Amino acid sequence: MSQPTSVPTTPLSQMSPDELTAFLDAARSSYDDLTRRGLSLDLTRGKPAPEQLDLADGLMSLPTTTTDSTGTDVRNYGGLQGLGDLRDIFGELLGVHADRLVAGGTSSLVMMRDVLVDLWLKGGPGGGRPWGAEETVKFLCPSPGYDRHFTLTSWFGIENVPVPMTDEGPDLDAVEALVAEDPTIKGMWVVPTYANPTGTVVSDAVAARLAAMPTAADDFTILWDNAYALHHLTDTEHRSADLIGACAEAGHPDRAVMFASTSKISWAGAGVAFLAGSEATVSWYLHHLGQGSIGPDKANHLRHVQLFGSADGVREHMAKHRALIAPKFAAVDKALTHSLAGLGIAEWTRPKGGYFVSLDVLPGTASRVISLAKDAGVALTPAGSAFPGADPEDRNIRLAPTFPPLDSVVEAMEAVATCVRLAAAEKLAG
Amino acid sequence: MSQPTSVPTTPLSQMSPDELTAFLDAARSSYDDLTRRGLSLDLTRGKPAPEQLDLADGLMSLPTTTTDSTGTDVRNYGGLQGLGDLRDIFGELLGVHADRLVAGGTSSLVMMRDVLVDLWLKGGPGGGRPWGAEETVKFLCPSPGYDRHFTLTSWFGIENVPVPMTDEGPDLDAVEALVAEDPTIKGMWVVPTYANPTGTVVSDAVAARLAAMPTAADDFTILWDNAYALHHLTDTEHRSADLIGACAEAGHPDRAVMFASTSKISWAGAGVAFLAGSEATVSWYLHHLGQGSIGPDKANHLRHVQLFGSADGVREHMAKHRALIAPKFAAVDKALTHSLAGLGIAEWTRPKGGYFVSLDVLPGTASRVISLAKDAGVALTPAGSAFPGADPEDRNIRLAPTFPPLDSVVEAMEAVATCVRLAAAEKLAG
Repeated sequence: MSQPTSVPTTPLSQMSPDELTAFLDAARSSYDDLTRRGLSLDLTRGKPAPEQLDLADGLMSLPTTTTDSTGTDVRNYGGLQGLGDLRDIFGELLGVHADRLVAGGTSSLVMMRDVLVDLWLKGGPGGGRPWGAEETVKFLCPSPGYDRHFTLTSWFGIENVPVPMTDEGPDLDAVEALVAEDPTIKGMWVVPTYANPTGTVVSDAVAARLAAMPTAADDFTILWDNAYALHHLTDTEHRSADLIGACAEAGHPDRAVMFASTSKISWAGAGVAFLAGSEATVSWYLHHLGQGSIGPDKANHLRHVQLFGSADGVREHMAKHRALIAPKFAAVDKALTHSLAGLGIAEWTRPKGGYFVSLDVLPGTASRVISLAKDAGVALTPAGSAFPGADPEDRNIRLAPTFPPLDSVVEAMEAVATCVRLAAAEKLAG
Repeated sequence: MSQPTSVPTTPLSQMSPDELTAFLDAARSSYDDLTRRGLSLDLTRGKPAPEQLDLADGLMSLPTTTTDSTGTDVRNYGGLQGLGDLRDIFGELLGVHADRLVAGGTSSLVMMRDVLVDLWLKGGPGGGRPWGAEETVKFLCPSPGYDRHFTLTSWFGIENVPVPMTDEGPDLDAVEALVAEDPTIKGMWVVPTYANPTGTVVSDAVAARLAAMPTAADDFTILWDNAYALHHLTDTEHRSADLIGACAEAGHPDRAVMFASTSKISWAGAGVAFLAGSEATVSWYLHHLGQGSIGPDKANHLRHVQLFGSADGVREHMAKHRALIAPKFAAVDKALTHSLAGLGIAEWTRPKGGYFVSLDVLPGTASRVISLAKDAGVALTPAGSAFPGADPEDRNIRLAPTFPPLDSVVEAMEAVATCVRLAAAEKLAG
């Protein structure tokens, strides 16, 4: 092991030229050692580990019956809104009435795509023009954020407009100023709870501002991706802000469309996705869905009802996930603290939930760090992928520690820290 | 029972006025008896019966493992094209290489919608203009056909253009004339095997003509919905015509997109849907799919692999379906023959596969028959629903006998025949 046994506490920016040269030499030497170890580690994607998936292996022998509590045969066609029994459980967990919740297929991303297709071809629930009929459509993208969101809007030809993230969520001053003036800004992505990748939790106050703010586009739509609503990493179970309720109160009932799924609760590729919104939004969504669908996989809905039993069953299940992954997040923090604290070359989040750690390195070095890590056998998410377009400062790195075993997370993070030290020293000495 | 014990063999059109009046009186009397029976029967939708769904109840305790034959964990994200083991089985059954087959979610209709979204927003695999950029887009709709097809294209704002069905499939003379001249005709629906509702089977010769015909639109696309490819009702297992191969040979490799599913093989709402096409078509589809999806439900794919085991396993499974539903189709024919043969007021199909019987009554009486049946407690598919717009002759009625129990099918068909007799007599005596 080539990890430093004692971390210098002098920030690199305050080192003398000689000290910096010595630091650079040591960092090079550590990195050379690292590359000789032939690592093959991957911190790229927020995937559950096999042990987490094992928690839901009860699905293998479910459902034990083929009818739900109303006697509906879950095997046959129909039931566009999804099984009521499952909507009851997740409505309680997500803070929406089951009538306002749709249970769909396995992927909330697919539901987001469907909503965008409907907005694009038909216009929103309020009856506005189809977005596809506009010359320009823009979407606000709080950044760093979720790359697949940005990819999706970009696919439609929507212009992604980055706005900064603060510790409380999207920078609302920036958001309010933009949406008030520009009618081509039709919507906004938000991951409200334990955001990807910063871990930020949006408060009710922030949700109230998002709900109430005047927008030049009268069909302004917030795609509220509550992917990590139940994914706590500490004893504090942050309740998700109620944007749908806030929008109703503010007189913009159709502004919010919420998404969620069991992808990181049961089986990642075989869970159930949800959509929620106002009565008009749900009717609008189901109307368009019904033009090309006879109904979702109700058998999989019933499997999930029987696996969890109740909202409390889901909560207990999530506690088991936490027990498996919280140590990995602790290991990330420990490795970064051990190797980087006091050097003034990195900051990182200590998320209270979700799937990611956001690491900010010395501006201009993120892509170098990722490249160094790659050459040492550690795959990191490509530089700038959490931004629409590119990371303007080339400093953000998204770390996803859930999938690898704990000892691999430790090994990978020590390697990442080594790369961060080397890239910073190169930059400052260069 | 008020069924006639002997059927007059004189066609109604050749009866004397007195004979016709007597026939009408008898028909009215039969119908009055019918309405007093308080029936509640439904022949509207092509749904499998519970006994058919029972055949796949092995799914309740599958999968027994969580990895496929390559060691992939089916529970996690990924694998956009679907499980190879399942594509091997259904590729063999559908006559396409597994590489050219995509296994998706539960619904082939959703895959058709996705393909139309991609064509609409992005243009086809050959790189043509997005269909949404055209002033007018038309689609040929062989009629009678599948109402949900026509609903779907209509939802996009596509103009559905009916073309007649013949005993060999779409009327190719009509089709060739239209597509050769009109570049706004961008595509065509075809159900090639045991078509909904006529049971027609498209031959290889017809497929070859469809593949080779010159079209004014160079991105002309045939949506080839092979929903009933394996759904034989007799000992003769009609092999589906190979449109994809024919298109490749004719130099129009991207003209065909084939769809299929296990909806009427395993569980109707919880099966697996498939798409197939040229290499370029599959790449194009997967590229766009990947902008908004991380992958399909591979656990459900593995369930189906384990349920069937092989292509022969599927064939054996389909024989069990046939044993359950062939008697219902025989009952339809028997009831219609018993009550209507020789009267010259109805013709109907005797399908060799699929899910429907197409009943043609006296022109101008289909909606009357359906209305009479409704008042007598027998639900039939709305008049004209097998046509885009309306049935020009008001004569076609789609019968779906699979879902009700056999004795209900018998009862319902006797009722339908009574309504056909009455409506015809009213018409001719009126």
